[in-house]
Amino acid sequence: MIQHLAILAPGLLGSSVARAARERGLAGRITVWARRAEVRAELRGQPWLDDVADTPGAAVAEASLVVLAAPVDRIIELDQEIAPRLAAGAIVTDVGSVKGPICTAAARHPRPAGACFLGSHPMAGSEKTGWEHGQPTLFEKRVCFVTPTDNTPSGALVQLEKFWRALGAEVVVAAPAQHDEIVAHISHLPQAVATSLACALAHKEGDWRHLAGNGLRDTTRIAAGDATMWVEIFQQNRAAILEALARQEEEFTAFRLALERSDWADLRARLERGKAWRDGFRT
Amino acid sequence: MIQHLAILAPGLLGSSVARAARERGLAGRITVWARRAEVRAELRGQPWLDDVADTPGAAVAEASLVVLAAPVDRIIELDQEIAPRLAAGAIVTDVGSVKGPICTAAARHPRPAGACFLGSHPMAGSEKTGWEHGQPTLFEKRVCFVTPTDNTPSGALVQLEKFWRALGAEVVVAAPAQHDEIVAHISHLPQAVATSLACALAHKEGDWRHLAGNGLRDTTRIAAGDATMWVEIFQQNRAAILEALARQEEEFTAFRLALERSDWADLRARLERGKAWRDGFRT
Repeated sequence: MIQHLAILAPGLLGSSVARAARERGLAGRITVWARRAEVRAELRGQPWLDDVADTPGAAVAEASLVVLAAPVDRIIELDQEIAPRLAAGAIVTDVGSVKGPICTAAARHPRPAGACFLGSHPMAGSEKTGWEHGQPTLFEKRVCFVTPTDNTPSGALVQLEKFWRALGAEVVVAAPAQHDEIVAHISHLPQAVATSLACALAHKEGDWRHLAGNGLRDTTRIAAGDATMWVEIFQQNRAAILEALARQEEEFTAFRLALERSDWADLRARLERGKAWRDGFRT
Repeated sequence: MIQHLAILAPGLLGSSVARAARERGLAGRITVWARRAEVRAELRGQPWLDDVADTPGAAVAEASLVVLAAPVDRIIELDQEIAPRLAAGAIVTDVGSVKGPICTAAARHPRPAGACFLGSHPMAGSEKTGWEHGQPTLFEKRVCFVTPTDNTPSGALVQLEKFWRALGAEVVVAAPAQHDEIVAHISHLPQAVATSLACALAHKEGDWRHLAGNGLRDTTRIAAGDATMWVEIFQQNRAAILEALARQEEEFTAFRLALERSDWADLRARLERGKAWRDGFRT
């Protein structure tokens, strides 16, 4: 049970955290803050919160858990602003897709004794964005990374893990850099692959896609993701993504060369290796 | 209405053609032939056929439409075997995923006056293979290519188009080489991309995939396809696929370089181009 939960800049994820916490009775009081006055006006009276603060500082002043739900390139400045205003022992977390830069910057922000920053990344989302589309069930059975550093108080780690589990998530603990390497491979690389495939096909007659089966539809689905969000992610996780892209480029070139050389044994080995890996997915 | 339909080497697709034709009353008589005697024994008594022939020649002797449903690398030899045994005016088609080599070879096989080969490629399938999994609804609303050459009698083209439409398919007419270029891009390239991505990720700790969201799941789904079938397709359509792979390689390398140079305007343009193309899919 969190005595006082504060959600700053709630979008889809932030409002889902509040709704889930309210529905499951996990927070005594829920305060939110939004950057724009008209959004704050819309939020007032929502059943999943208790009050709307006019400034980030006011929102966090008495909070025991603060969730920074801003876009990934705004989280650092928001943490810097609220850090000195925190209550003693408060935990600040976020929901950003990249953790290294945020956790490194947050470690340098001065904050009261016992207060700390501890990053989170719930692997949940929707094609829809905005707080009005939040769902109390959004985190159920979804992976949520929690990314402590060597200086994270172990009590805060235990408490934050417990919070995400109570929201229905499956918690995975990883250091910020390890998290970033993992998501570079399992999330950011697939985006680059799907986008490149979509661009390669866009060069050909546009109508061909209407002749395709479900294979092309699935392989390119995530290419429809929001470009602004993805530019931010590529900016924040550039180094780890570059390594993943280089690995993919090697694999793809090797596949093409196997075909060019008509090396059917090598091509078959690649198809079988890919199949074995894909067959190993949990269902 | 086809007076006499013969299906040679029925697997999933061939038995679906027979079942759909029977259910929709499109064929007066349906004869099948399978290579193995034990399969012929199993087929006898199936409600969607009238008789099982012991040789390809016997199966086609009186047929007005012959469907060669063998794997793509067996179709040419099967056509060569049956071509001299055809009835006058018979149409031979197939269900192979690659059309150029088959249509070129078939044009050289001597056959009786008025008989012809005219390729088909129904874009339908299932994870399941084998005649026992055939479905009479398999072709409904699916694209089916029909691939005439300059020498195809127009009457045969009209009749084969009508047959596939009667089975529920949406017929697209394209020359064999054009068909092969299209499927190299919309079907074979995505397979190479999904397989390479799966292989690149297989190099990293295998458990990471269990942390992924639906994006990775969708992007790599077709990597689970049958390796033997795909080796045959890559063999048959090598030249057209090599061109598609080269285009993809260029796109992917350009994406990586944009990230390496931190050229966010270029990266954003690529994400937006991919999104626009993907948003243009028919729903």
